[in-house]
Amino acid sequence: MALENMILPRTGIGMDVHAFAPEDDPQPLWLGGLFWEGEQGLSGHSDGDCVAHAAADALFSACGIGDLGTHFGTDRPEYAGASGVKLLGEAARIVRAAGFEIGNVAVQFVANRPKFAPRREESQRVLSEAANAPVTVTATTSDGLGFTGRGEGISAVATALVYPVAASSHPGPAKGAPHA
Amino acid sequence: MALENMILPRTGIGMDVHAFAPEDDPQPLWLGGLFWEGEQGLSGHSDGDCVAHAAADALFSACGIGDLGTHFGTDRPEYAGASGVKLLGEAARIVRAAGFEIGNVAVQFVANRPKFAPRREESQRVLSEAANAPVTVTATTSDGLGFTGRGEGISAVATALVYPVAASSHPGPAKGAPHA
Amino acid sequence: MALENMILPRTGIGMDVHAFAPEDDPQPLWLGGLFWEGEQGLSGHSDGDCVAHAAADALFSACGIGDLGTHFGTDRPEYAGASGVKLLGEAARIVRAAGFEIGNVAVQFVANRPKFAPRREESQRVLSEAANAPVTVTATTSDGLGFTGRGEGISAVATALVYPVAASSHPGPAKGAPHA
Ligand SMILES: [Zn+2]
Ligand SMILES: [Zn+2]
Ligand SMILES: [Zn+2]
Repeated sequence: MALENMILPRTGIGMDVHAFAPEDDPQPLWLGGLFWEGEQGLSGHSDGDCVAHAAADALFSACGIGDLGTHFGTDRPEYAGASGVKLLGEAARIVRAAGFEIGNVAVQFVANRPKFAPRREESQRVLSEAANAPVTVTATTSDGLGFTGRGEGISAVATALVYPVAASSHPGPAKGAPHA
Repeated sequence: MALENMILPRTGIGMDVHAFAPEDDPQPLWLGGLFWEGEQGLSGHSDGDCVAHAAADALFSACGIGDLGTHFGTDRPEYAGASGVKLLGEAARIVRAAGFEIGNVAVQFVANRPKFAPRREESQRVLSEAANAPVTVTATTSDGLGFTGRGEGISAVATALVYPVAASSHPGPAKGAPHA
Repeated sequence: MALENMILPRTGIGMDVHAFAPEDDPQPLWLGGLFWEGEQGLSGHSDGDCVAHAAADALFSACGIGDLGTHFGTDRPEYAGASGVKLLGEAARIVRAAGFEIGNVAVQFVANRPKFAPRREESQRVLSEAANAPVTVTATTSDGLGFTGRGEGISAVATALVYPVAASSHPGPAKGAPHA
């Protein structure tokens, strides 16, 4: 069929959750690639930026080359404390090295705060520059329900589209064009 | 590369959650664009239709033009009590005015009730007409776990594909073709 | 516009959640199409493989032809105890019979365990063979929060891309090319 001669997009998905750091060990809040002055921070091996992490994981998911843990896990001490922006940039580099081009990434986070709207475009710009591809960010709440509603943490979910543009030497089933 | 000459889809994602209205302030249930007779309603600035809201938010997410709060937030009293169908129709109009065509939207909601299967096609028809594009709706439960399992509220998650079909005057990073 | 002459992808989404089986009724764990020796199993009408189920539901969602309950629900006793791999294979067959080709499916699950990384490629291979299309699987945790963080169950979320390749006789609004 005609699809065989097309470069087809591949979809990916990524969720990421971080708990707020305990009050007796306050952390700075990094979210969507930005520092949020005066806001309670998130815990994590890195800076806890679940927006950037979900974006990176969606890219890995689309390519089938592992996940955040595979590439930046706790067994990789060089990424301890790394910023979400750095991890997203690294993820984009890894994805391109594996033979994929990035279409776009869309992330939504769920949290009672911070108030995101005034800095949404700034966040999109920082993350898009890190990935060298369009990254959009939106925000919502969970209407007081669940762990995000109780203010215990922040969750983010992302989708991504990538395109296999280079022949891959990897024999795995999760790459290349869809099966005939 | 060849991708440069193609109109590429952009993916978006949207989650929405509404708590059930308290028993001493019962509300009608609107979900998936439909009224559900005899069912406990959801709370919200609008009609609480998290299926329609997630669909609208996924469209905004794909385009990078803000989110439900940006366009229909509590600072927009003209949308107080607005139906989910109206908001989805408005979202589709805004997205097209921003230079995008809509591919499709897929929504899944998580709830113990109402029993959705008998009205799934009706819901898809109403939402597809509102968006003037295919909107699919599916349902599941969370096996008794979390706030949906406890019957505290309903959550919905949506993905959307849009196509940048008109030159945009917006200089932001999150529009147009993927970066080279 | 040019989109009218293209075979456009359609996106779909699927979440699935299963609680761990009670300790006094232990079950084998099936996840991502694999048996996990010595791990606490999930409850469910079938084998509780939420990764395979989310993948199948994302495919149905993209096509607008119902969901897991429609095709494999508790009113279908022939699927009682069916493996996730079998259900995903069946879902792919149903989707193709409805006139769609499968682009890819991406699934992420959220759980404290099992330790997935060593068997990720095996899982991707088994599920990709079942669907006869690329299926990627990634894993994360919810940082101790919510029902996955408390170890009450496992959740999975999937996206899929499908392509309408055959004329469909179904008159519903949720199929075919996007509306003009
Ligand atoms: Zn993270
Ligand atoms: Zn809402
Ligand atoms: Zn299931």
